[in-house]
Amino acid sequence: MKKNDYPWEGCGTDKDITGCRFSLSVMSDEFVGKILDGIGNVDCSKVWSQTDALSTVYRGKRIHVMDAVKACFIHVNDEKTHITMEATISKGCLGDVEADYVLDVDDILVNKTDKSFQVLSKIAFYPLGVADYMDHISHVVKLAISKGLYNKSGHYATELSGDINDLFDYFNEVLEYAERHIKHYVLQATLSVNSPTKVKEEK
Amino acid sequence: MKKNDYPWEGCGTDKDITGCRFSLSVMSDEFVGKILDGIGNVDCSKVWSQTDALSTVYRGKRIHVMDAVKACFIHVNDEKTHITMEATISKGCLGDVEADYVLDVDDILVNKTDKSFQVLSKIAFYPLGVADYMDHISHVVKLAISKGLYNKSGHYATELSGDINDLFDYFNEVLEYAERHIKHYVLQATLSVNSPTKVKEEK
Repeated sequence: MKKNDYPWEGCGTDKDITGCRFSLSVMSDEFVGKILDGIGNVDCSKVWSQTDALSTVYRGKRIHVMDAVKACFIHVNDEKTHITMEATISKGCLGDVEADYVLDVDDILVNKTDKSFQVLSKIAFYPLGVADYMDHISHVVKLAISKGLYNKSGHYATELSGDINDLFDYFNEVLEYAERHIKHYVLQATLSVNSPTKVKEEK
Repeated sequence: MKKNDYPWEGCGTDKDITGCRFSLSVMSDEFVGKILDGIGNVDCSKVWSQTDALSTVYRGKRIHVMDAVKACFIHVNDEKTHITMEATISKGCLGDVEADYVLDVDDILVNKTDKSFQVLSKIAFYPLGVADYMDHISHVVKLAISKGLYNKSGHYATELSGDINDLFDYFNEVLEYAERHIKHYVLQATLSVNSPTKVKEEK
């Protein structure tokens, strides 16, 4: 590594920090209120969180980060409005900072999410810095197939659909696999509900 | 490589195909018409294109793909409505297919784009399969800094802002660099206009 050459020189952390940066898009004239309500109703007591003009970031233990992201999408979904969430879930970046996290918490999830609805999704999985990255991507796609969530492989993404709870169980399984096998990875996921284009959203 | 094991077994191509999968989000009750108008007004004569329930894909020569993506965002921007575009620009995937492309065309751009407006953007660059990926990411971030487009480094993304034309010139430069140095890469970019949150959208 060339010292004094990276914009993020001096960064990096060995802490067990998973993070998610997500953007909500609400296809409605009332998007501001709906987005703020959705974000505002998430119990963020077990994650670090920050919202800027483009997105919201949660950082901490994987299970709590994913619990909060899922809760946010559930809260924002009024079951009428077309809404999407673009989420970048990542761990292990060499440029990461040892700050902005909550880790000293137990494993009890704090967001009650008993709702159930169908979601259309696309995902892409990027293991960084490893030559065998296609093996890991293959594992992730096959896992979706085995769980009945897989619709099709498209250019630059894999299309999934299923119940919101099953999708997040799958995301957690993917991330658990990634933690075991890859130092730095990114799971890029888009979720869509109530689209006027109903192709395969419901199985 | 383990044969007969990948979902995309038998795929791969040496053709010079750059692709972009993008999703437009229009924060308005009139989102369907606005999105269809935006997409419909792009001259796609020099790219392959396909739209599904989640996104639109253009594939072909890089300059024409980026010309079409930029034109689409310009067409959809009515300079009032909050609109975002999430774009995955990629080349070189081992699972790519030697199909769905337009390459046998000259280099004359077909989309007239004389409009100018400020865009808030976040990007992430993922070189795949190489150990020195952080060097390439560093190059891409420094290029944004040198072109005056850089706002800040955030978790999991770099925030940029600037004129739509300068941003796309930068994207093209990043992709040109990537073509020279990396076999398989992904540039993930989000563009945002007319947000009620005006932080740093205008410089």
